[in-house]
Amino acid sequence: MPLADCRIIDLPKITDVRGNLTFIEENRHVPFGIQRVYYLYDVPGGAERGGHAHKELHQLIVAMSGSFDVVLDDGREKKRFHLNRSYYGLYVCPMIWREIDNFSSGSVCMVLASNLYDESDYYREYSDFQAALRGRP
Amino acid sequence: MPLADCRIIDLPKITDVRGNLTFIEENRHVPFGIQRVYYLYDVPGGAERGGHAHKELHQLIVAMSGSFDVVLDDGREKKRFHLNRSYYGLYVCPMIWREIDNFSSGSVCMVLASNLYDESDYYREYSDFQAALRGRP
Repeated sequence: MPLADCRIIDLPKITDVRGNLTFIEENRHVPFGIQRVYYLYDVPGGAERGGHAHKELHQLIVAMSGSFDVVLDDGREKKRFHLNRSYYGLYVCPMIWREIDNFSSGSVCMVLASNLYDESDYYREYSDFQAALRGRP
Repeated sequence: MPLADCRIIDLPKITDVRGNLTFIEENRHVPFGIQRVYYLYDVPGGAERGGHAHKELHQLIVAMSGSFDVVLDDGREKKRFHLNRSYYGLYVCPMIWREIDNFSSGSVCMVLASNLYDESDYYREYSDFQAALRGRP
């Protein structure tokens, strides 16, 4: 899928003096059902993650605390997104290479995923990802 | 349901120098399907939330950053849980009155929920919750 399908989703935010609240419902605020949630924490400042793509998986990435950058790449172009608000989610469609870097110390990165973990859904090598793109119409 | 059905779930933790990772799959690490995710943030220290029960909703509560206490009450007894680790989740079954307090400044409270938002699933008044419990076998 092209990079243009990936986008920042403006999530609902209920402002309250006791703390703000954001909610995400499957197939409503994200264009997929939520089967899995995972998150990165205890992240040292400046850390980097990622370097993989998924064949079928849809994801939403949220900076729950702190900030980081997500670099998306569809094999033709790259785009860098800076995430630093709990009410913005970055939707990442299938067949997009992603890297995450520039983590602030103690940041928390939450990801909602459309499927259970499946190692066979991953491209771990960029050359395999490129070969798969060439094989697509 | 009795308070004994509520419990701390020890979530998987993948330790890594680039940051730790915890994942939660529906119907595997939690005893329900995940239809909704919501979270509290920008919370001032000492804030309090909650004071309601659900008829049918199952939830998992996680301290993604900072710490807070969750007080659960099944109408017979109360139990206080202190949450301060990203890899512990508190499972809350239906028909449990819950309050959250003792938030540390800037803490983030994430909740996974088994259903979409439905106001008719709430007991907002403790007396209504008690009356419903008396009406149950």
